[in-house]
Amino acid sequence: MFVGKVVGNLWSTKKDEKLEGKRFLVIQKQTYSKNAATEDDILVAADRVGAGIGELVLVTTGTNSKYTFNDEELPIDMSVIGIIDSIDIMENEVKL
Amino acid sequence: MFVGKVVGNLWSTKKDEKLEGKRFLVIQKQTYSKNAATEDDILVAADRVGAGIGELVLVTTGTNSKYTFNDEELPIDMSVIGIIDSIDIMENEVKL
Amino acid sequence: MFVGKVVGNLWSTKKDEKLEGKRFLVIQKQTYSKNAATEDDILVAADRVGAGIGELVLVTTGTNSKYTFNDEELPIDMSVIGIIDSIDIMENEVKL
Amino acid sequence: MFVGKVVGNLWSTKKDEKLEGKRFLVIQKQTYSKNAATEDDILVAADRVGAGIGELVLVTTGTNSKYTFNDEELPIDMSVIGIIDSIDIMENEVKL
Amino acid sequence: MFVGKVVGNLWSTKKDEKLEGKRFLVIQKQTYSKNAATEDDILVAADRVGAGIGELVLVTTGTNSKYTFNDEELPIDMSVIGIIDSIDIMENEVKL
Repeated sequence: MFVGKVVGNLWSTKKDEKLEGKRFLVIQKQTYSKNAATEDDILVAADRVGAGIGELVLVTTGTNSKYTFNDEELPIDMSVIGIIDSIDIMENEVKL
Repeated sequence: MFVGKVVGNLWSTKKDEKLEGKRFLVIQKQTYSKNAATEDDILVAADRVGAGIGELVLVTTGTNSKYTFNDEELPIDMSVIGIIDSIDIMENEVKL
Repeated sequence: MFVGKVVGNLWSTKKDEKLEGKRFLVIQKQTYSKNAATEDDILVAADRVGAGIGELVLVTTGTNSKYTFNDEELPIDMSVIGIIDSIDIMENEVKL
Repeated sequence: MFVGKVVGNLWSTKKDEKLEGKRFLVIQKQTYSKNAATEDDILVAADRVGAGIGELVLVTTGTNSKYTFNDEELPIDMSVIGIIDSIDIMENEVKL
Repeated sequence: MFVGKVVGNLWSTKKDEKLEGKRFLVIQKQTYSKNAATEDDILVAADRVGAGIGELVLVTTGTNSKYTFNDEELPIDMSVIGIIDSIDIMENEVKL
């Protein structure tokens, strides 16, 4: 999983019918160093925990991301699985 | 998922028989910053939603991308799952 | 999927028994810009469509790549799924 | 798998119900060269082996990471599968 | 798959019980150009073909890497599937 920030919303009318009613959030990956180059891709995650703009979230990727929903055959590869309360990072253990 | 743009088409006659009749679109990943280096790989996604050249699309990757089709054993790893109507990105939340 | 070029062959005698008789091709990822840094990893794909040195091919990755073969439990993560006849890329849509 | 270092903890109250009681560790990828740029993403792994801050761990990713738990439908993509006792790297074989 | 070189061994006593008796090798990705920056992550693969330090090996990743073992529920994402006898790369086809 990775720590991401919700930075936007995305709407799509003409889409795979299995995605009807799903909520999509635009996510930006977060980094250890404040001035590092961020992951520049515009990532999109399905959300069922109700995260809002500006919140830090725990994001899961790949096959297992479908398990946040009951539909076993969902064509998604990224889901928000938690809203982060706090992260304790031991700065002296991090190599920058 | 990631936000991509349809930039081309691709044809293959000699291919895996399970891909017969499938439509392939050449996709370029989009980025937050206008002048950032784009993902340079020439990506190709299967399409069932009918996206056209120049459109922004929602692209899913990996195992679950096969669920956009009924054939459970399709050897693909990338599908267009939606044509994007609009994206609202809160610029003040994005780190560039 | 991504557009690759077949640049070599690879032989292995001492290997997983499920790979007996499989053909392996060395693949290089192709890029939009002619002078961009190419993906430098030496990638290897299993091939069942009969691609040859110098040909552009459509390459699939991950779990679903095993579906190009009948053996459901093949330990591979990359397959050639088609020989490319032509790619039409709308240059004006590509950001370089 | 990759060699990571446990550099922090993460808490989330509002999360996918399947994650109740799971322990999350913040992980930083380790590199061959001491002064190389480290993987900057803030990675998070589920842990069942009891790793602590500052320990080097073996981390697995993707679909199979769920097998460290008994729940088959866990929406995770990264798990700690071992605490590393020692790594012997033959420096003369490594290209830096 | 990718071409890797075995550069070390790794030991872990406190680990997922499904990994008991498995052998872990430290792997470095190989590149087309001799002086290119190598993949800096310290990768670790499970090995059942008996590869040794300094040997070039074929490495598979992701979900299917578990098929090199009989246990269907192994939490691994990287396996050595072959020791490479030879690689023929057509230098004139490679873009450096």
